[in-house]
Amino acid sequence: MLYFIGLGLFTENDISVEGFNALSSVDVIYAEFYTACLMGGGFDKLSNKFDADIVFVNRKDVEEDNIVIKNALKKDVAFVVAGDPLMATTHTELYVEAVNHGIETRVINAASIFSAAPGLTGLQAYKFGKTTTVPFPDENFFPHSPYDAIKKNLSIDAHTLVLLDIQAHRNKYMSINEALDYLSIVESERSEGVFTSDTLVVGLAQAGSISPVVKAGSVGELLDFDFGDPLHCLIVPSNLHFVEAEALLALADAPRYLLDKFL
Amino acid sequence: MLYFIGLGLFTENDISVEGFNALSSVDVIYAEFYTACLMGGGFDKLSNKFDADIVFVNRKDVEEDNIVIKNALKKDVAFVVAGDPLMATTHTELYVEAVNHGIETRVINAASIFSAAPGLTGLQAYKFGKTTTVPFPDENFFPHSPYDAIKKNLSIDAHTLVLLDIQAHRNKYMSINEALDYLSIVESERSEGVFTSDTLVVGLAQAGSISPVVKAGSVGELLDFDFGDPLHCLIVPSNLHFVEAEALLALADAPRYLLDKFL
Repeated sequence: MLYFIGLGLFTENDISVEGFNALSSVDVIYAEFYTACLMGGGFDKLSNKFDADIVFVNRKDVEEDNIVIKNALKKDVAFVVAGDPLMATTHTELYVEAVNHGIETRVINAASIFSAAPGLTGLQAYKFGKTTTVPFPDENFFPHSPYDAIKKNLSIDAHTLVLLDIQAHRNKYMSINEALDYLSIVESERSEGVFTSDTLVVGLAQAGSISPVVKAGSVGELLDFDFGDPLHCLIVPSNLHFVEAEALLALADAPRYLLDKFL
Repeated sequence: MLYFIGLGLFTENDISVEGFNALSSVDVIYAEFYTACLMGGGFDKLSNKFDADIVFVNRKDVEEDNIVIKNALKKDVAFVVAGDPLMATTHTELYVEAVNHGIETRVINAASIFSAAPGLTGLQAYKFGKTTTVPFPDENFFPHSPYDAIKKNLSIDAHTLVLLDIQAHRNKYMSINEALDYLSIVESERSEGVFTSDTLVVGLAQAGSISPVVKAGSVGELLDFDFGDPLHCLIVPSNLHFVEAEALLALADAPRYLLDKFL
């Protein structure tokens, strides 16, 4: 038996009651914090609440050594991950492999940034287009794909949720400021007017915490804004419904002059 | 104090531990089941676990009589809703109104169909475009908007999550079959090739339950497929990554001949 259990967004208490109960029933818990992580609390705080061992796995354990599948063939295993459990391709592959091995599976969902970001910013979830991620650039690695995703979404009047790179093993979490810089550099190379210093953006930090930081403004205004601790994400809105504009005023301290241009 | 607390997808145990703890601390709990609902369990089962009264509210209570805001001005109030708490415009308006009244707020997220549907079908969450809803048609009411949303998403190579109408007060929940009929009628009027009998679709029912039903096929093949109990939703995929195609084979019993056309 293999459970895929989401841990939600911020602390060890963001797991569902159903997920918590499932953890009480398994033989071993594999915790994966390389694609995402809980910044507000240690999942290890839960270890004294369960009989099962909690094993913190790395990518090699899962993708090369296949320890999750090997053990799920003979034991009751939980694979736990921050957010909702099947958002990353690597987890989908694990799920498919389990099913193809005839392992009984159960998915226990939890909160995801995919729905939390619209909710916390007051932007309408159904108006979001494709999600994109800004990676940490490297020598010979500076993809324009996030810029292209924003451009495509704008072509169908859709907002863009921009996730920011996580390199948890290096304790590196991209900030909104770094992402604004990244996209501004792409704009300077492409000059297509997709991401200028006047573009309205909404930054969201510490989603799922008691006090998430939500701040809207132009790219130029937010380049030096301090969003505080990670995790950060960014939204590039398309045209706004008036309810969304009112929400950005109330929830994101948006400058009114800027919203008028998008209504 | 006003908490917005998500209940997740299926039963009363899909609330987060954090949300459950918050419910233990409030004076009154307003439960809203007119925009969405938990098909697998009664939230009222929780009533003996909290000191607070659980009040099941209707749209008039919230939107016209404003009982949530009025009470949150003087008491600790929880507003609970199936799924993630701020997905419907009416909830965003309530959130904004609370903030504008100076009421302290806290959002406690939970699982949403917006992320669960990609996860359970094995389709990549970041490849989904705008979400749309098929409404129950009525005399002089048969909008083409869901068809247009699918068409627009396909234009940027994005999948479409199609939610299906809920009229909980009438105990009416649209089935996947009804939605396929609806979209086929639009296709017959528009003839733009967006939703033909050969179009690949993925139906998902009872998301969040122990055994969700996931079935992929052509529109023609699924018109009479029995997906069982509500809630239902539908996905109209764009082009597939090979990992997605493998997932639809394993998780959604997809016919291989159909996938080959989308790779």
